[in-house]
Amino acid sequence: MTGMDGTGSVTSRALRVLEAFSADTPVLRLTDISRHTGLPLTTAHRLVAELTEWGALERESGGGYRIGLRLWEIASLAPRGLGLREPALPSLSDLAHVTRENVQLAVREGLEVVYVERLAGRGAVPVLTRVGGRFAPAPTGVGRVLLAYAPPEVQEQALAQPLVRCTEETLCDPDRLRQALAEVRHAGVAICEGQVTLDSVSVAAPVYGPSGEVVAAVSVVVRLGSVQPYALVPLVQVAARSISRVLGGEGGPVRGRAPAFPNGTGTRR
Amino acid sequence: MTGMDGTGSVTSRALRVLEAFSADTPVLRLTDISRHTGLPLTTAHRLVAELTEWGALERESGGGYRIGLRLWEIASLAPRGLGLREPALPSLSDLAHVTRENVQLAVREGLEVVYVERLAGRGAVPVLTRVGGRFAPAPTGVGRVLLAYAPPEVQEQALAQPLVRCTEETLCDPDRLRQALAEVRHAGVAICEGQVTLDSVSVAAPVYGPSGEVVAAVSVVVRLGSVQPYALVPLVQVAARSISRVLGGEGGPVRGRAPAFPNGTGTRR
Repeated sequence: MTGMDGTGSVTSRALRVLEAFSADTPVLRLTDISRHTGLPLTTAHRLVAELTEWGALERESGGGYRIGLRLWEIASLAPRGLGLREPALPSLSDLAHVTRENVQLAVREGLEVVYVERLAGRGAVPVLTRVGGRFAPAPTGVGRVLLAYAPPEVQEQALAQPLVRCTEETLCDPDRLRQALAEVRHAGVAICEGQVTLDSVSVAAPVYGPSGEVVAAVSVVVRLGSVQPYALVPLVQVAARSISRVLGGEGGPVRGRAPAFPNGTGTRR
Repeated sequence: MTGMDGTGSVTSRALRVLEAFSADTPVLRLTDISRHTGLPLTTAHRLVAELTEWGALERESGGGYRIGLRLWEIASLAPRGLGLREPALPSLSDLAHVTRENVQLAVREGLEVVYVERLAGRGAVPVLTRVGGRFAPAPTGVGRVLLAYAPPEVQEQALAQPLVRCTEETLCDPDRLRQALAEVRHAGVAICEGQVTLDSVSVAAPVYGPSGEVVAAVSVVVRLGSVQPYALVPLVQVAARSISRVLGGEGGPVRGRAPAFPNGTGTRR
């Protein structure tokens, strides 16, 4: 919307102040904000003062600024943020308690995955995600589900981009990834082994909204070799269907008694 | 910061567009936004377009606007929102599973309580709160804890306001409330019976931050008569101390073997 030259509307400049904050830089001083946004110090000072008065920013005792509770209160109304997470939480919590593993709920935003909820099992394999954080879709279970059910033009855009390689196992060939997405649609589940970290496997299933579209994906991430991933498939699918039902969706067809990959033995009922 | 006359800086006008959205009005049409904010339709149109382009708003297929995922992503960095909720979640989850009741985590924002997390037990008594929602502090367990440990000037401001009466039991006399706050400080716990709804009782304890100040409160809300509230006190206190420890706080002194009220029999150790 704007360059780094201090131009752009006042609204977009205020939004640029907000987007200077990240998980890596949750607290910023005025000079940091000026540098991050490319805005002159006086402009940054005025915008920060207005944002702080309203509550979008809060000033720390040390003089730094952080994102304010007021912004969080209003942002909690985002239907794909807290609005999705609230109805999903009971099922996610059940899944986390039964498996004692990492359970994640994610949505697609453009060509990326945004994690809406993450429940970490005690002693579960470390995962790289955080709530509110983004990730490339192709290597993750949730991302592969979200891509598999995305409109064809979104899939082609995603496949046309340079694919992120996280490990030596990460699928980075567009044709093989296109085939993997077809398998996800066929099986109604994604299983990603060693794609994000070599020691993890993700099992993910689609969550359907009221108009029959896939609105989110739920996954369990476990340490590779600790559990037979296929044993997790029905658990993840039941959780996804349960969340779909709460959202007013149908849960989608269950195709195939067993997932159709990696060896393609799945059969349609 | 601004009147309802279309004046005020552009930043404050953009923020007024955001604050037009509420739990009761999560989807607004352009005309609604113009009416809620008092901004001319053309101004509202331009601001909404900029906010939508950035992702602070999202347009629904029906033509309405809602809070966007992008705003939620950035707001998730608020240390007193998701930043507090994430480290607290394991203890809150344990508390909800053991008690099967409503578990809440709240912070004080000015003279109000903001709920940062709420886990609803299955079949638990209905509660009036939602995550990201505000409530008057005096009748709630978490609010009474947060007021009890607030600076004296905040307490006096809260007591000088007209006190919200939710039920015939709600404590609305400033002197009795001041005494109740002293009892909370003495006992390290608040027990509020029939204060918000006649059929509920809340048991709440303070959460301490690294500098020794109370930064949040955790509560269990149960149906009146279903559980002896005193039996919940150690569970809530343990959860609060566990969260304090994760935050780098000490957990505060445990004063009294039993809470000092309503009959004042608590003893200091």
